Amino acid sequence: MAESTKKQKLVVRGFALSLDGFSSASGQSLESPFGNGGLVIMEWAFQTRTMKTMFGQEGGSTGIDDSFLAKGFDNIGANILGRNMFGPVRGPWPDEEWKGWWGPNPPYHSPVFVVTHHARAPLPMEGGTTFHFVTDGIESALQQAFAAAEGKDVRLGGGATLVRQYLKAGLIDELHLVMTNKLLGSGERLFDGTDNLARDYDCVETVGSETVTHVRLAKRKRS
Amino acid sequence: MAESTKKQKLVVRGFALSLDGFSSASGQSLESPFGNGGLVIMEWAFQTRTMKTMFGQEGGSTGIDDSFLAKGFDNIGANILGRNMFGPVRGPWPDEEWKGWWGPNPPYHSPVFVVTHHARAPLPMEGGTTFHFVTDGIESALQQAFAAAEGKDVRLGGGATLVRQYLKAGLIDELHLVMTNKLLGSGERLFDGTDNLARDYDCVETVGSETVTHVRLAKRKRS
Repeated sequence: MAESTKKQKLVVRGFALSLDGFSSASGQSLESPFGNGGLVIMEWAFQTRTMKTMFGQEGGSTGIDDSFLAKGFDNIGANILGRNMFGPVRGPWPDEEWKGWWGPNPPYHSPVFVVTHHARAPLPMEGGTTFHFVTDGIESALQQAFAAAEGKDVRLGGGATLVRQYLKAGLIDELHLVMTNKLLGSGERLFDGTDNLARDYDCVETVGSETVTHVRLAKRKRS
Repeated sequence: MAESTKKQKLVVRGFALSLDGFSSASGQSLESPFGNGGLVIMEWAFQTRTMKTMFGQEGGSTGIDDSFLAKGFDNIGANILGRNMFGPVRGPWPDEEWKGWWGPNPPYHSPVFVVTHHARAPLPMEGGTTFHFVTDGIESALQQAFAAAEGKDVRLGGGATLVRQYLKAGLIDELHLVMTNKLLGSGERLFDGTDNLARDYDCVETVGSETVTHVRLAKRKRS
């Protein structure tokens, strides 16, 4: 693919939104990483073979949704996450106990840079994932992630607050959004104060599946 | 259809949203009823035979988009509009000159109740449309519209501010939304402070066309 010869990109992939524009519901907790009732916006993903395989299960759909989900991991050399995406703990880390939502072998298999206000030692996990905690801002996290990705792209996983910060700063090259028909009522918005969006991004692909609409946005090339 | 035997309904039909959640862009004016660049979210409609016929043109698509648009006029006996949807004039009416965006023969062909803070005499137009100006609130407008509709449904045309008020009050029975892949960056949001949405409405239909996704929401029946 011609795209792989380009410079390293910062990409968002498989980022699901409710019909009313939220990427998670209010009330995130240990039991509810997507907030109260928020997990419904990921239902499309749980049906897919790619997701089922990640959870060690058989079967799953192999159509449009699965294809987009699988492609989301293509050519990714490092990841960036917001602190709330890493866990429900707020404020300074009380201890080293919390190691992410994903168990001993997280699905990243590459360096993950967690943007946080609170320093913590790097946390190596099974399967090639190491969590690094970055306390000096989003540009530093991106710089470190690009370096760690060794020429590959960097995937920005969320949450909405962090994606929004990178969006406003014009640092995201491509977003794959998953527009669901679920209603959350309240929660975290991806699009809020992102006035630059219409000016800086083009919709380059729209594909409907049976359950959701996949939309790809790409940063507009300056001539 | 069984639905026509039910009580009168307040419905929203063909209400388009940008990918980032806006139903019009900032900067509404005489030249730009949808704000600066906002008309792009209606592109899907301008392609259709129904819309072209309304503008006295030949041809147009006859697929999913056209079908939804045409059905939007089914069984409608009266309409409700917000004041900004009726025109760009703000504050008290300076004179009787402004008669809506739609020329001498507006596409309503039935009574239209314009919710406004500023009284004005009823304005009869060609083709059966009469604009009535309601100054005592959304419930009064609905009551008057139901009475005028003579058993048929009432269509709430917009803008977003007015639809949102009716949504929050739980007065809308059904919404047909048109989710586009256009970016506006800023403007008027339909979903803002509509926390009751997840509790009060179900998504009852989702149909993708080549250009947009049609979503129908219906008020949940209380058991």
